[in-house]
Amino acid sequence: MRDLSADAALLSLNTITVREQWSLAECIEGCVRHGIGGISPWRDKLEEMGAGEAARRIGDAGLTVTGLCRGGMFPAADAAGRQAALDDNRRAVDDACTIGARCLVLVVGGLPPGSRDIAGARDQVRDSIAKLLQHSRAADMPLAIEPLHPMYAADRACVNTLAQANDICDELGDDGLGIAVDLYHVWWDPDLAAQIARAGKKRLLAFHVCDWLVPTTDLLLDRGMMGDGVIDIRGIRQLVEAAGYDGFCETEILSRRWWAEDPDAVLPTLVERHRTVV
Amino acid sequence: MRDLSADAALLSLNTITVREQWSLAECIEGCVRHGIGGISPWRDKLEEMGAGEAARRIGDAGLTVTGLCRGGMFPAADAAGRQAALDDNRRAVDDACTIGARCLVLVVGGLPPGSRDIAGARDQVRDSIAKLLQHSRAADMPLAIEPLHPMYAADRACVNTLAQANDICDELGDDGLGIAVDLYHVWWDPDLAAQIARAGKKRLLAFHVCDWLVPTTDLLLDRGMMGDGVIDIRGIRQLVEAAGYDGFCETEILSRRWWAEDPDAVLPTLVERHRTVV
Repeated sequence: MRDLSADAALLSLNTITVREQWSLAECIEGCVRHGIGGISPWRDKLEEMGAGEAARRIGDAGLTVTGLCRGGMFPAADAAGRQAALDDNRRAVDDACTIGARCLVLVVGGLPPGSRDIAGARDQVRDSIAKLLQHSRAADMPLAIEPLHPMYAADRACVNTLAQANDICDELGDDGLGIAVDLYHVWWDPDLAAQIARAGKKRLLAFHVCDWLVPTTDLLLDRGMMGDGVIDIRGIRQLVEAAGYDGFCETEILSRRWWAEDPDAVLPTLVERHRTVV
Repeated sequence: MRDLSADAALLSLNTITVREQWSLAECIEGCVRHGIGGISPWRDKLEEMGAGEAARRIGDAGLTVTGLCRGGMFPAADAAGRQAALDDNRRAVDDACTIGARCLVLVVGGLPPGSRDIAGARDQVRDSIAKLLQHSRAADMPLAIEPLHPMYAADRACVNTLAQANDICDELGDDGLGIAVDLYHVWWDPDLAAQIARAGKKRLLAFHVCDWLVPTTDLLLDRGMMGDGVIDIRGIRQLVEAAGYDGFCETEILSRRWWAEDPDAVLPTLVERHRTVV
């Protein structure tokens, strides 16, 4: 297992962690200022300056782009909606290429409005990823399916376990397709160790960290800082590294509590927790 | 598949649905008034009048007791805590016998305070159920393990899938041990159909219904009335009945919205939804 205690070279800042406080330009400068080696922008932040300018500034700063968040949101009520989602995902692939991201993270989407057919939504997701792969493989941009916690099955992602993500990779082929493991979504899974091993080095494209708070007061915006909750973070990092993962630990904390803080206090906390509890 | 459209003879009222408005006495009278054939009290309601008096009144009303909610909460930080939990569960078995419940529902408990060891908590649960079975089998009271949604893994139940519950039944034996299937907790599970079939008639001891709202605004107290959310209720009822389930549909709705209503309006809504969407 790697020793991360020395610095934050293998820490990546997912920009949503300071979404309410900082622009992308400020995030880039903040990472440099606090010795954080990677960044993972959301597309809303990317649009502030455009992908080309973002690529230039991130490159000048010497940061690794651990992912672009996010593609996905595939299921739709009709063919036109599915096509629009696919077109948008192709643009996301292109932006990910422009900024040199290691992968495009896919939050695959939930039930179309009015639908109760989760099996059908899952079929749509698989079919849309298959179509997107034609473009992403040509562009040499890996797609990382991110299983989301089952509490988001209806409205954000109907891929809710690593087993499902692995099944999709089995079906569509590993070339340019893998998985983003986010602790928040998978920590509870009794099948976690087996499915991480099944994914293996080839599929493990990203590793996102935060913590599960007790109590959790909001379904979306109450994620915890690493160490403040109940997830066995180091134990799970051990699993992904035993499976061959050698990339960054990306902090993705959606939290009203942390959005109310000065980012120049948040980032040192991320660094300290990265070194001591991740 | 059974036709439930004629009446509410196979509907059971879980008392938590009107917890804030009615006493157990009022729940019993309300069921009779609205033609609801079953009742499932929580232990706090049972304590109001004592199990013996509750048994007499429920019997006089001609109601079937579809379950007693709840035993469980097994994991503890030390042996004394585990023993106290076990003792309390034995009393719950005795109360379930007194009121003639079809099963004692087990919400198994989450992580002990300060713990990040979910595998250890799961081991504690299995071991405690094994011990409780010595008492419950002698008393002829079936235990129904209720898998809870993964969003409750930390603080309410570390058994989060039907697969886990089936595994425990495999390990400890089917005699006096089964499963309570609650739609709210399992609807998202990609393995749902297979695990219901695996459970089969022998293990399917209870079937709880409500709905998953979009958006869901509270992790605990925002369950939906059947038909108001995205769960394919009839599709899942078809699965449990195809597996042999022939018991009641028990409505268990924890909801601030419905707790603010007059129960004499809530119960007719339960009946109408039972007949039309369950």
